[in-house]
Amino acid sequence: MSEHPILQSFIAGQWLGQQAKQPLYSAINGEMIYQTHADVIDFGQSIDFAKTKGRRSMLAMDFQARASCLRDLGKYILEHKESLYEVSALTGATRADSWVDIEGGAGTLFAYASMGRRELPSGNLIHEGDAIPLGREGHFYGSHVLVPRHGVAVHINAFNFPIWGMLEKFAANFIAGMPCIIKPATSTSFLTEACVRLLQQSGFLPEGSLQLVIGRTGDLLGRLDGQDIVTFTGSAATAAKLRVTPNLINNSVPFNAEADSLNCAILAPDVTVDSPEFDLFVKEVAREMTAKAGQKCTAIRRVMVPENHIEAVSERLTARLAKVSVGDPRINEVRMGALASHDQQKDVLAQLGALLETSSVLCGGTDSFELVGTGTDKGAFCQPTLLLSNNPDAEGGAHDIEAFGPISTLMAYKDLDHAVSLAARGKGSLVSTLVTKDPEVAAKVVPELAVWNGRVHILNEQAAKESTGHGSPLPMLKHGGPGRAGGGEELGGIRGVKHYMQRAAIQGSPTMLGAVTKEFVRGGQVIETEVHPFRRYFETLQIGESLLTHRRTVTEADIVNFGCLSGDHFYMHFDDIAARETQFEQRIAHGYFVLSAAAGLFVSPGEGPVLANYGLDNLRFITPVPIGDTIRARLTCKRKIDQGKVSPKGEPQGVVVWDVQVTNQDDELVASYDILTLVKKQSN
Amino acid sequence: MSEHPILQSFIAGQWLGQQAKQPLYSAINGEMIYQTHADVIDFGQSIDFAKTKGRRSMLAMDFQARASCLRDLGKYILEHKESLYEVSALTGATRADSWVDIEGGAGTLFAYASMGRRELPSGNLIHEGDAIPLGREGHFYGSHVLVPRHGVAVHINAFNFPIWGMLEKFAANFIAGMPCIIKPATSTSFLTEACVRLLQQSGFLPEGSLQLVIGRTGDLLGRLDGQDIVTFTGSAATAAKLRVTPNLINNSVPFNAEADSLNCAILAPDVTVDSPEFDLFVKEVAREMTAKAGQKCTAIRRVMVPENHIEAVSERLTARLAKVSVGDPRINEVRMGALASHDQQKDVLAQLGALLETSSVLCGGTDSFELVGTGTDKGAFCQPTLLLSNNPDAEGGAHDIEAFGPISTLMAYKDLDHAVSLAARGKGSLVSTLVTKDPEVAAKVVPELAVWNGRVHILNEQAAKESTGHGSPLPMLKHGGPGRAGGGEELGGIRGVKHYMQRAAIQGSPTMLGAVTKEFVRGGQVIETEVHPFRRYFETLQIGESLLTHRRTVTEADIVNFGCLSGDHFYMHFDDIAARETQFEQRIAHGYFVLSAAAGLFVSPGEGPVLANYGLDNLRFITPVPIGDTIRARLTCKRKIDQGKVSPKGEPQGVVVWDVQVTNQDDELVASYDILTLVKKQSN
Repeated sequence: MSEHPILQSFIAGQWLGQQAKQPLYSAINGEMIYQTHADVIDFGQSIDFAKTKGRRSMLAMDFQARASCLRDLGKYILEHKESLYEVSALTGATRADSWVDIEGGAGTLFAYASMGRRELPSGNLIHEGDAIPLGREGHFYGSHVLVPRHGVAVHINAFNFPIWGMLEKFAANFIAGMPCIIKPATSTSFLTEACVRLLQQSGFLPEGSLQLVIGRTGDLLGRLDGQDIVTFTGSAATAAKLRVTPNLINNSVPFNAEADSLNCAILAPDVTVDSPEFDLFVKEVAREMTAKAGQKCTAIRRVMVPENHIEAVSERLTARLAKVSVGDPRINEVRMGALASHDQQKDVLAQLGALLETSSVLCGGTDSFELVGTGTDKGAFCQPTLLLSNNPDAEGGAHDIEAFGPISTLMAYKDLDHAVSLAARGKGSLVSTLVTKDPEVAAKVVPELAVWNGRVHILNEQAAKESTGHGSPLPMLKHGGPGRAGGGEELGGIRGVKHYMQRAAIQGSPTMLGAVTKEFVRGGQVIETEVHPFRRYFETLQIGESLLTHRRTVTEADIVNFGCLSGDHFYMHFDDIAARETQFEQRIAHGYFVLSAAAGLFVSPGEGPVLANYGLDNLRFITPVPIGDTIRARLTCKRKIDQGKVSPKGEPQGVVVWDVQVTNQDDELVASYDILTLVKKQSN
Repeated sequence: MSEHPILQSFIAGQWLGQQAKQPLYSAINGEMIYQTHADVIDFGQSIDFAKTKGRRSMLAMDFQARASCLRDLGKYILEHKESLYEVSALTGATRADSWVDIEGGAGTLFAYASMGRRELPSGNLIHEGDAIPLGREGHFYGSHVLVPRHGVAVHINAFNFPIWGMLEKFAANFIAGMPCIIKPATSTSFLTEACVRLLQQSGFLPEGSLQLVIGRTGDLLGRLDGQDIVTFTGSAATAAKLRVTPNLINNSVPFNAEADSLNCAILAPDVTVDSPEFDLFVKEVAREMTAKAGQKCTAIRRVMVPENHIEAVSERLTARLAKVSVGDPRINEVRMGALASHDQQKDVLAQLGALLETSSVLCGGTDSFELVGTGTDKGAFCQPTLLLSNNPDAEGGAHDIEAFGPISTLMAYKDLDHAVSLAARGKGSLVSTLVTKDPEVAAKVVPELAVWNGRVHILNEQAAKESTGHGSPLPMLKHGGPGRAGGGEELGGIRGVKHYMQRAAIQGSPTMLGAVTKEFVRGGQVIETEVHPFRRYFETLQIGESLLTHRRTVTEADIVNFGCLSGDHFYMHFDDIAARETQFEQRIAHGYFVLSAAAGLFVSPGEGPVLANYGLDNLRFITPVPIGDTIRARLTCKRKIDQGKVSPKGEPQGVVVWDVQVTNQDDELVASYDILTLVKKQSN
């Protein structure tokens, strides 16, 4: 038993699984290493636990607190990463492959932690504003809010990234405030289990926020409703099968698919054989073919090269691939490990057979090859294989068949239009790379590729200095492509979080919208007291606290002095002849003078809780201010965000956004903007 | 023949249909009025026409030109609206009902025209920026673009709004640059056909941008691929059936559903019988029950009232409904017309029968009732019917059965939590109305309702002055709800346009991203010439044209003078004792002084093409400027938008956004922002 531990599911707060069911084998040498459990999971209980305890514990926190929690979880993983690297090797992964999975996974948590903290409010409701007036008198406004869905996110993941695949989805649903149930692919579920044990041991995971299913999903999908969400990563065929689950269809359960696709790399005709970009192309293709033994949904499957460069690319690429030593990934010199399982190996060889009907072998193929390490003859290995398409324009072949291993097909194109049309033959991909030196080529080709891809990677000498590579989805960029790639969207910054939230339009009086969104909406009730709002600490300041300032008449002297001081002698302010010719028909004050004078009207000069004005958004100059006009300002607390931040001096502080309206003697709006400040907390 | 015209499809630029097939009847008196055609449509030809000619003609225009075109189409409809009102009456619609359909449809075109012009760029690519640095040295950036999908949008519409239902979808796909094929519900397709004839006669419609299918869709859905999109409006059952069309599933064709749902209105407990909100509630419910004879996917089906107010609401509501005269909608005094067809009438009565198993009749019901007008005894009428739920907590009943006519069920709730849980029993709705006087109630209840609704309408005395009502989807607000409501999203401003576009992440050097997005990305190549960029006309100014200014040392005198002039004597600038205590440890210059001095550095004072600086976005003060620092600015043309605008003086102009970076003597970024200007065109 202890030699072949039984993996356990983590359901309703308990580790479950005592009886062995299915053996799992090492990808390196075929030895039995783990077993799945036979114990039946009660998915009714699991969903119920998520929707009650899970939901409650997650919404007891807010966006900001969950962002902090993600950071803590990421740190805990990094502190314990070596235990994961050990287990990861058994999936056939090299240290570099495992780095992507383990540290890339933790990195995704950090990235979402920081995006959440920076871009999301306090509380559990996102106001996707600003509010829009729906009538002329300002009595009725519309806006949008997003709230966490009341359901559970079911993540059905692929075998290739047992940790990253889990965490990239978990990061988004967790920040959103939605609990999840994770179902990893069985063949590598032992690594996901190891990671979930770490997360649970960390003590940071809120109760019920994450459950793990080892083995089959049973009646799980049949129990979901319209508040739940299913995400799927894997083959297009399985996606199509799961997507039509009657219960999902009848309840309009969102189903987000990210499927393997026939991604391509295009070498543009402007790149000559002797240029650095030529080498970059070869290097990128070789890397994407062999990283994770080609078991990446983003791997380059189709290599498109101008006819005149086919030979040069073929030569350099085969030479590079020949240097890749294959074998036990725990051995230092090994550059490429095994496929994740013997089933995978069988599949890949079958697909290779199918590809060979329309292509010939440039290197690799079905012949025997050398392996590093003992016992590897029983492992699930496959050698790097480069094929040459006999006829890139023919139906099927490399445009249709995916061998999910270190296998790519080289094909010749005539001109860029032809290359784009070949790329489109993949019917939708996750990512394409274009290697070019010429911005004009990028400007022409990238919008065409964007139609067929979730991501387009443009590589040249400059970008290569810092490029994260063709194959790497990043937390801040969308992952997921159209058509064959599943039509889904994951990641992409806060956009990814919103997939786990329900967007609703809201309509009502400005005061009502302000109460719901916790943001001041113009026309809504303001709170005016004897205390200057700049003298309130963060905690006591209320949304809607407002100051209507004294007035100031703008004089010719102001304009002259302001021009002299700033150096801005624009004709509109200083040239009476030219100014009369403009639509304003006279000299007007500088916009920045209005801004500065407004600050002079509302600033409370003495020391106080307001630490700094660090920015300004959405400034619009609406009515010009000619000499003699009299202005005043209304400053209203619009929004407060508690990011748990502390100033460099150690003072706890929060972000306060103020709505500013500058008006003239006729109550016309002169200027309108938001100012961003840091305000001290009283709890100092 | 001429008495019962044969409706025609508009396919591949031709009106098609000579042979009669199915008769269509007047909803008012049951007389045969039109016939569908028997002629077979070649959908292969139709799709091909859309994807070649349609796509070409639409992308020969850009977002701005298509926005103008929408406005022209809207105007043409309004100029010819009376012909549509005449036809519309035959669907059973009153003048007020038809207004929503016809003028509401045209209004949606105007709204999208103006949002497109204001919020979209020139060209056919949206840059969803800003670009994000992906490395530390600024060599590699990421961003997102949206491009028009290469396919066709197939719109399958409901019978209730034959014109608005078509135009609200067309407006979005048209601005996006995607051609469409529209399939209206057969029973009222004669009104859609009349409107398409108008659009085509206007001469404004680009070739192939819109096709119309009268009758069945044949093999249309079976011919679509991953670049196409299907939208559906109608019953949840039909949505579920169409959604699993194997070809749509296998190609991940996006399927956007907007289904009828069991929307509710909640009277909050704070509203007393004598308050204006009480009457507003009764009025809104009565209006939503009877408008369009209750045939609105947004109609109020469930009326939730505190137990103690059930009687008062029942009394006032039945009294109000009793005043609604039903009959031939062409007669002035008639307030409610017919259901759209006799089939509908049969359906509604069947659902009413089902509802009666769990409720009793308060008014209306299955008894005979008075009708205004001749021949109406053969029409498809149904009287306003208010039911009282026997047990709101029971399964099924009004939470599950939708009678798509003037029928609603009143139910009592105990407290607000109970009301929200009853609302959720609808399993997802398009819209709910909450009537309350109390912002605290709204703040508590609306986020809960938002989970279950696409839109939440908060009604009180103030909002009522301008409220557009519970039942009206607006172009700028999302339309579509979760679960039973189909899980889709339509409208919602430019968000609705993006549904018809493909989003792709792009990665590369800043120069490459700039070339693709037509926006300057920091770190990208700039263009520096002898000419000041402010002296270039709109047409000749290039993205990336840049000016690095001379320098200016900031002195104590500057701070003193600026404080005196603006009136801003904040301690950070004037109080050496307090300033030493801050994180900056010394007095620093006003942020607005830095802004003003930067303008002084880069402004070109004489008359020139720059007409006005009308705003500023994303200003961040990054490094403080103490006395003695020396600053300079870099001003770079970031983005140009040609909205076809003309200044009040008649001068053609365009919008130019400039990137400004202010740096100090150590090349540290001091301030960063975008300024918005209007720049004259040379073609004056």
